[in-house]
Amino acid sequence: KKRTQPSPDELASGIISGDVVALSRAITLVESTQPRHAEHAQSVIEKCLPYANRSVRIGITGVPGAGKSTFIETFGKHLTSLGKKVAVLAVDPSSSISGGSILGDKTRMEELVKDKNAFIRPSPSGTSLGGVARKTRETILLCEACGFDTIIVETVGVGQGETAVHGMVDFFLLLKLAGAGDELQGIKRGIMEMADAVVINKADGDNEKAAKKARAEFARALHLYPPKENGWVPKVLTASALKNRGIAEIWELVEKYTGKNRKNGYFDRKRSEQNKYWLLQTIEDRLKTSFYQDKNVKKTLTEELAALEKNETTPFAAARKLLDLWNRIQ
Amino acid sequence: KKRTQPSPDELASGIISGDVVALSRAITLVESTQPRHAEHAQSVIEKCLPYANRSVRIGITGVPGAGKSTFIETFGKHLTSLGKKVAVLAVDPSSSISGGSILGDKTRMEELVKDKNAFIRPSPSGTSLGGVARKTRETILLCEACGFDTIIVETVGVGQGETAVHGMVDFFLLLKLAGAGDELQGIKRGIMEMADAVVINKADGDNEKAAKKARAEFARALHLYPPKENGWVPKVLTASALKNRGIAEIWELVEKYTGKNRKNGYFDRKRSEQNKYWLLQTIEDRLKTSFYQDKNVKKTLTEELAALEKNETTPFAAARKLLDLWNRIQ
Repeated sequence: KKRTQPSPDELASGIISGDVVALSRAITLVESTQPRHAEHAQSVIEKCLPYANRSVRIGITGVPGAGKSTFIETFGKHLTSLGKKVAVLAVDPSSSISGGSILGDKTRMEELVKDKNAFIRPSPSGTSLGGVARKTRETILLCEACGFDTIIVETVGVGQGETAVHGMVDFFLLLKLAGAGDELQGIKRGIMEMADAVVINKADGDNEKAAKKARAEFARALHLYPPKENGWVPKVLTASALKNRGIAEIWELVEKYTGKNRKNGYFDRKRSEQNKYWLLQTIEDRLKTSFYQDKNVKKTLTEELAALEKNETTPFAAARKLLDLWNRIQ
Repeated sequence: KKRTQPSPDELASGIISGDVVALSRAITLVESTQPRHAEHAQSVIEKCLPYANRSVRIGITGVPGAGKSTFIETFGKHLTSLGKKVAVLAVDPSSSISGGSILGDKTRMEELVKDKNAFIRPSPSGTSLGGVARKTRETILLCEACGFDTIIVETVGVGQGETAVHGMVDFFLLLKLAGAGDELQGIKRGIMEMADAVVINKADGDNEKAAKKARAEFARALHLYPPKENGWVPKVLTASALKNRGIAEIWELVEKYTGKNRKNGYFDRKRSEQNKYWLLQTIEDRLKTSFYQDKNVKKTLTEELAALEKNETTPFAAARKLLDLWNRIQ
């Protein structure tokens, strides 16, 4: 590094004035595992907070092959053409294992990368979903303070990332392909219930007919779910990111949704509940971690699990023993 | 009380020799909130453990009106006629609120109550599902040590009790009625996924046709679910508890299921996983409770939630503050 690290104050003013370099540097601090970096990151975030939270946050998920990159590129370009400033982030807890990362290969979104009103950041690495989720949430705040009014958070629809992303966005979009066979097979049920909209992508050429059929099937299936808290019935649309078809309609749907929910107070209420969720979740994760990582606890837990396996103790007697030990240690 | 409490030793030998009065007294100790009783209860359970765990545990759930009482009576009588010893327990965390209790009104199972090979115990009262679940699980062990080889655990299919019961039984049965309209509407999705069998009850008289239709619909719906870990495809049966029709078939199904799973090792593996689940669940519940019940934590949490509401802090900064406080207190 050529020059000294800018101070948290400098970074924060840079971010607030719309400086993307300052934004990138601050995100690097957020993602760092060094305690001093973490402290600086918190300081930057604190200063940025009054300028954050003014955005629409959209989660996009879909299995590999559903065309997420092309979709986000086309969707993002549409948004910048409307004068929006778009930040694209990702949550991919598996990337630390696989070594790869979604969004890591920026060439996948060639056009959007060149767009000065777009900011693309790959998934932070991390061993735990909790860690990756925290970093992404903090990055959202920084992007918002930097003037990005539309935040897209991508996740691969095969892991646990979707729940985390659903818990940090205002609108959750499931990207699907019209495939052969039974359209309902293979859908991870939880994801369907989370979706505010399902988009059947690649609805072009030979695929168009299948996409329309899939759309009808999904619409029927979604009616089997209990209605959402805010009364919203998830919509099913078809689109072709490649041919730029149906993209404008998706954004109109998002605007209709957010407009309605801003008016009835649900928009703010949901964000407030999400904040509370992350607060409690973080606390509970940490309480568990410090318990299970204790050496003495580890040893006794192993012994008690063995005794349990042989029916020499009950889960409750074993739990009491471990909790007594923990209380003595602390 | 006329006489002194029998010692844990006396109770345990009573239970092991099949004395139902000793069993009842020990369960009362398990359900007591007095520390001395709890200690005695643990001692009794410990002595009974080598004689427990030899049974088939069946969970039965269904919404009010599905005919659970009549079903359990007819099913239980069928089992005792085969020479089985049947214990019927219940998990109903709401009973402490409503004041009522499922199984509380023993007259609902007049025939079974009189059967000397049956033992019926209403749901323990308690404010938390965790507490009720623990008491029921410990009661199961005592019943098994007393020679009951078939344990039925009833729960009302409207709350959180089903997950708890599913976590303590070998076979989970969902009782349904053939209703008018779309059979798939109104099913709590989680319950369907838990069921090893769905029984359409009251398949008699005018209802018979509707029951058969419902059976076909459920069978179709169950095929949309991912297969169970052990490869079991949940079965859908019709029955009339009132007319004693289809009852023998249900028991045959349970026997087929348990026979197969005992052979392939899944039966023991599942019980072992359930034990582990309750151990960890108990620990984590307790860790959370002691944190959230602390006076200082409560006060600061209220402040931080207010700050969060006004976007003056982030969930993670607030969590850190609370955890630092907690570490200082302890």
